Amino acid sequence: MKRPIYLDNGMTTRPSSLAVSRMLPYLSEKWGSPSAPHQFGQQLYPALEESYRALYALVGAKRQDSFVFTSSGAEAINHVIATGYHDITCSTGKNQFLTSKVDEAPAILAIGRLEQLGCVGKMVAVDSYGRVDIQALKESITPRAALLSLSWANGLTGVIQPIADIAALCRDRGIALHLDATHVLGRLFFSWEEVGAQYITFNGDQLHATKGTGGLFIKEGVKSSSFILGGIEQGGRRAGPLDVPALVALGVAAQQLVEARELMCTEVARLRNKLEEGIVAGYPEACVLFCEAERLPCRTAIAFPGMVSEALLWLLSRRGVYGCIGGGSYQQISLVLSHAAVASEQVQSAISFCLSRETSEEEIDEAIEIIVGAAKKLRKLSVSFIPGGNHVA
Amino acid sequence: MKRPIYLDNGMTTRPSSLAVSRMLPYLSEKWGSPSAPHQFGQQLYPALEESYRALYALVGAKRQDSFVFTSSGAEAINHVIATGYHDITCSTGKNQFLTSKVDEAPAILAIGRLEQLGCVGKMVAVDSYGRVDIQALKESITPRAALLSLSWANGLTGVIQPIADIAALCRDRGIALHLDATHVLGRLFFSWEEVGAQYITFNGDQLHATKGTGGLFIKEGVKSSSFILGGIEQGGRRAGPLDVPALVALGVAAQQLVEARELMCTEVARLRNKLEEGIVAGYPEACVLFCEAERLPCRTAIAFPGMVSEALLWLLSRRGVYGCIGGGSYQQISLVLSHAAVASEQVQSAISFCLSRETSEEEIDEAIEIIVGAAKKLRKLSVSFIPGGNHVA
Repeated sequence: MKRPIYLDNGMTTRPSSLAVSRMLPYLSEKWGSPSAPHQFGQQLYPALEESYRALYALVGAKRQDSFVFTSSGAEAINHVIATGYHDITCSTGKNQFLTSKVDEAPAILAIGRLEQLGCVGKMVAVDSYGRVDIQALKESITPRAALLSLSWANGLTGVIQPIADIAALCRDRGIALHLDATHVLGRLFFSWEEVGAQYITFNGDQLHATKGTGGLFIKEGVKSSSFILGGIEQGGRRAGPLDVPALVALGVAAQQLVEARELMCTEVARLRNKLEEGIVAGYPEACVLFCEAERLPCRTAIAFPGMVSEALLWLLSRRGVYGCIGGGSYQQISLVLSHAAVASEQVQSAISFCLSRETSEEEIDEAIEIIVGAAKKLRKLSVSFIPGGNHVA
Repeated sequence: MKRPIYLDNGMTTRPSSLAVSRMLPYLSEKWGSPSAPHQFGQQLYPALEESYRALYALVGAKRQDSFVFTSSGAEAINHVIATGYHDITCSTGKNQFLTSKVDEAPAILAIGRLEQLGCVGKMVAVDSYGRVDIQALKESITPRAALLSLSWANGLTGVIQPIADIAALCRDRGIALHLDATHVLGRLFFSWEEVGAQYITFNGDQLHATKGTGGLFIKEGVKSSSFILGGIEQGGRRAGPLDVPALVALGVAAQQLVEARELMCTEVARLRNKLEEGIVAGYPEACVLFCEAERLPCRTAIAFPGMVSEALLWLLSRRGVYGCIGGGSYQQISLVLSHAAVASEQVQSAISFCLSRETSEEEIDEAIEIIVGAAKKLRKLSVSFIPGGNHVA
């Protein structure tokens, strides 16, 4: 089979070759534990420092802010929400935890678990672009609100949340703000200082790092105790042997994200736009969703009215183009679109495509052809099989 | 510097070269997500199945038992204890959580956190070998006891817990039993069926797997909800992208542990005994601790009365022999020995050495010479500096 065209970079990305090659010595010769007081452990420090420096630069963190290296973004999100109970609720009595109706599963389920401890979860409604509705948020916040946890951007549609307004509201109401920045890192220019969130988390394997990587930044002065308890590793913030090879790979990936940010915001955005225009030109019923909203440069969600997304996804996969309809730890695109009150024939037929800095123009040209062809074929089949319709042999 | 003699295999082990080489394709070409419905994801299944098979064989689990791949043993222990609250306490009201006074930090601190939720933690006293005192355990258990969490063997002294008696008692009193099997896997022949624990956890980087690996086995029919919430990965038991490369490495390491078990219990035990005898022959004040108890074949704790362990550890490290006095996620050896009511001059001067299947006879011969020499040198210095003593220039 020909090499497939991978447009599922919202789910996972190819680990950077440089990141992998840099991690290898830490899997073979330099395998010590940095907690050990002998040379095998101590020799690891320069590489660790370099990784931390790259990660702090990626989000614009200050030296005084804290970083916890985690095994995934899901762990980091669970960390923020579960310890929020111990660090906020137990000391202040504030017990309302908020997220949006279209947020990803870790935040929604971790808040659900806190309800077993007497907390109150609230999933805030979204507007017609799937963004947090500021008015609904204002009305949802009670005097006992502790924490708002949000994906900075939607992983399927690419729509960016109105973070400035949200952060200002949280500040006014004295609510801690957690942003899952996975989808925006390397795709958006921002300074954490200006954003004003207390916690920023991310998942590494969506950022060209290896699997088993993620992180949590905690603003200076903000309390955040340990989620995985049990040791002095990472300053007591996360027990378990530090996965040095993975952290080295993550550091390299972070540096490359910063270096490729310009490319991402210009060239990759151009290719994304070309993909959208090409699909609509070849298959005029197709509808690019939320293109008037502020979106990430690499993502698009496109509806193909008249067919179901699963069938199109399957046919595309057979023809060597990999897209995504969500699921797993992420939302399902149909859920996101339903909450944004999109028309049901679009909800049922939408597919998300996510480019990376490695996506080539040739791939996009070819993808347009394959996607248009697949949509036309399915459209024909669907028409043929409309119950009571004019059946074609 | 000459290649050091690594006798700190209780802290971390060299990742198996075979395990690392087998994981590499999953870092470079086969980097997909097994949750993805296309070929990039689906091609991973054969390797995953092989890993799971090796892991089930390692502990003697049945197909009906569940396995959760975690990022470390610390995460797995936190999983068992934290979800114990949701799965046992919330449904039955049983709220006492027990461990031993010499258990490792994750269990002790995770139970400590449950006390914030109204649970009662109990650290059970140990006997003169540092084993759980069965009489003390009987007296500690209340009718509301939910879970007993124990390290199967002590990571520093190698002393094995009287698991059969403990498990029988737990069965009688209706208490769930969790065993951290990290130290015994590949070092002890056992069948999980006979042991009777509900949960078995382990940490991979102490078993020649890579860092970022660990696991939790759950007996058929035992409820254990998710600790890291948020997705369908691993049957909904742990959210976050499955770290396929690390799991592949862990599977290979598991198979090698099984293959090397005979060697571990004969040849490595012989070398451990040789180390002990050699040290005592060269430095007769040295005292091998707990050698009458049932111990792991690869570990020894030796006291060197008349000096402090930190000084000896440092000098040994300078001379190229790496031992351990605990700390980090693990206990400190002085704490373990204090609870076992060992004489204070032994408590202060004990060092733990842990061999691996890779330790050679030449290394042991050389280690004996270096350890004896270092102890003699420190002994001379200590005598010289006894306050008010006969100061030697």
